[in-house]
Amino acid sequence: MIAALTTDFGLSSPYVAQMKAVLLAAVPDVRLVDVTHDLPPQSLRHAEVVLRAAAFAFPLGTVHLVVVDPGVGTERRPIAVRSRGLTFVGPDNGVLGIALEQPDAKAVVLDRPELFRHPVSPTFHGRDIFAPVAAVLGKGLALEDVGSAITDAVPSRLPKLRREGGRSYGETLVADSFGNLLTNIPGAFVKGAVIVAGKSARLVRTYHEGAQGEILALTGSDGYLEIAVRDSSAATVLGGEILPVECESP
Amino acid sequence: MIAALTTDFGLSSPYVAQMKAVLLAAVPDVRLVDVTHDLPPQSLRHAEVVLRAAAFAFPLGTVHLVVVDPGVGTERRPIAVRSRGLTFVGPDNGVLGIALEQPDAKAVVLDRPELFRHPVSPTFHGRDIFAPVAAVLGKGLALEDVGSAITDAVPSRLPKLRREGGRSYGETLVADSFGNLLTNIPGAFVKGAVIVAGKSARLVRTYHEGAQGEILALTGSDGYLEIAVRDSSAATVLGGEILPVECESP
Amino acid sequence: MIAALTTDFGLSSPYVAQMKAVLLAAVPDVRLVDVTHDLPPQSLRHAEVVLRAAAFAFPLGTVHLVVVDPGVGTERRPIAVRSRGLTFVGPDNGVLGIALEQPDAKAVVLDRPELFRHPVSPTFHGRDIFAPVAAVLGKGLALEDVGSAITDAVPSRLPKLRREGGRSYGETLVADSFGNLLTNIPGAFVKGAVIVAGKSARLVRTYHEGAQGEILALTGSDGYLEIAVRDSSAATVLGGEILPVECESP
Repeated sequence: MIAALTTDFGLSSPYVAQMKAVLLAAVPDVRLVDVTHDLPPQSLRHAEVVLRAAAFAFPLGTVHLVVVDPGVGTERRPIAVRSRGLTFVGPDNGVLGIALEQPDAKAVVLDRPELFRHPVSPTFHGRDIFAPVAAVLGKGLALEDVGSAITDAVPSRLPKLRREGGRSYGETLVADSFGNLLTNIPGAFVKGAVIVAGKSARLVRTYHEGAQGEILALTGSDGYLEIAVRDSSAATVLGGEILPVECESP
Repeated sequence: MIAALTTDFGLSSPYVAQMKAVLLAAVPDVRLVDVTHDLPPQSLRHAEVVLRAAAFAFPLGTVHLVVVDPGVGTERRPIAVRSRGLTFVGPDNGVLGIALEQPDAKAVVLDRPELFRHPVSPTFHGRDIFAPVAAVLGKGLALEDVGSAITDAVPSRLPKLRREGGRSYGETLVADSFGNLLTNIPGAFVKGAVIVAGKSARLVRTYHEGAQGEILALTGSDGYLEIAVRDSSAATVLGGEILPVECESP
Repeated sequence: MIAALTTDFGLSSPYVAQMKAVLLAAVPDVRLVDVTHDLPPQSLRHAEVVLRAAAFAFPLGTVHLVVVDPGVGTERRPIAVRSRGLTFVGPDNGVLGIALEQPDAKAVVLDRPELFRHPVSPTFHGRDIFAPVAAVLGKGLALEDVGSAITDAVPSRLPKLRREGGRSYGETLVADSFGNLLTNIPGAFVKGAVIVAGKSARLVRTYHEGAQGEILALTGSDGYLEIAVRDSSAATVLGGEILPVECESP
């Protein structure tokens, strides 16, 4: 079993280790893979962008444990989703949107407390609900064995693209560690001039075209339009992480 | 063998990788688990809080390699501790306090240089003493095979709780990545009003009770009283990480 | 197969996970070891210093996947290097200098596109070229099976030591997480007084000698001269990460 972990727990807290310990105790040969634990606290947006790019690259059978959970302890439901041969476990707050969007997605609410670690802390469902359920799913339990089917799971909260009059109107979502801005416009929708925060961006293929300091637009490695500035940080040059982007579309 | 690593080496230095390489060379099937490497440099306090929460969640047989070692190269002793089915290896500076406090704890000073990696760098015992000894302990060597028994290991340096007149007087120890403040008062000792840094905190069960910006007190996932501020960082609102806390006790 | 990963991708982006997913899919029993992903973006210097200290500590057969790649998408070549029983895969920009410097080093340019992941993103060769090639090398392919031999790979860009008139003239290269400054002067070349940025440093064996705040010079755990300040950060006290260092040499 591969357990891929995506959280906003940070790298200096004990929370990641506690989840890993629960998984190791339940599945001695689990393969733990950190997707990231360093998301901005409670940023569903960052979590969704990371999962959009990385989740389905993992081998079939991988269980994604996703804990960005500002609503822990409230009525928000704990859920599990199966789609495209992968399993996702996490809170029902939209963070599993990419899994739910797949045509074959099936979701359940985790309503079998006998599968949880007890006592369940009202502030740490990652350790007490999500990790134990991920473990039994990884060991082969069927989705219907861990909860009751639902069809109203909270969808992705990423802003939707608007297409109108041969143009696409979208948004930059997050900056990566190089300051490149990832957007919600699929590369296939980009034909002509790209405008970001009112400024023209030159359509290129790699970060190295154009002049130093020039604003560039290219299809990023996750298949979406990406805004970069040659030898610099687009987030810094453009003054933000969330900016309007528009372009001509085919 | 599971080797769980807790250090203050940071995430961009070569030191973590060097320790892992030594473990991998000695125990090809070692399972390396990062507890954290991002503790504030030389903060025994942060290390102790992380271990207090996470150490005993790991499966029996786990070897915890703990290297927060401001005294490396001085007379401070290298030690190993066994308690509750786990093994701990690290400097004798209090950082292994949680292991030493267990009723069945046994400790040895690591005085068998033939087990070390040579030459032993005077500045990196993590690589040259702790990792090699952790490896042989993980492979099954008895505690008495790696050193001589001691009974005077340095205990935890976390501040002790004071109980007096039906009240408990403690301290916030560290902030987690959300700004929640973890304390040294067990949740079971908290009955009535909690006062932190002279301000009243409302006793709740989850982070979502109370009004926005209200100071909250709850039993955290590690079983200790925790101070939070709804939708904000308690550390920021209260202006510090180390603050006096008191409460009525049963 | 051990795959040791060294990148500047940062800890909150999806890029590390994407590379790991490719490796896991290609080599189900791969052992993934993070050397670091938190190098300053595009700092070949930091990457080289980390590899200088850690690369050859790994067990024979380890494949080092090194992706600090400011020139991705340009004409810079993707290469693989074998030396001292280890394999290195990464861009031909000097970052693999330590591997190329070994007397038995052999290098190839990765010119077999049938081994790549397609379509190859022009901005993410780590996922689409380096990881897939690392996987087949780890599974046993010979170096000559993944590319054509070259003898003109870009060497290390770390500044070279100058020796003159019984003195060595070098440089501090990077600060570690404690603020200690690592240099390019081998410890064996240091005999007498050390001068860093015009200031005298006292030659000691450990960080604890000398008075508080005193500038210290010692042989670090990687075998090179290191500059430290007792109970403080040398980088802060001396005001920089890259400073001239000189000393008497035997």
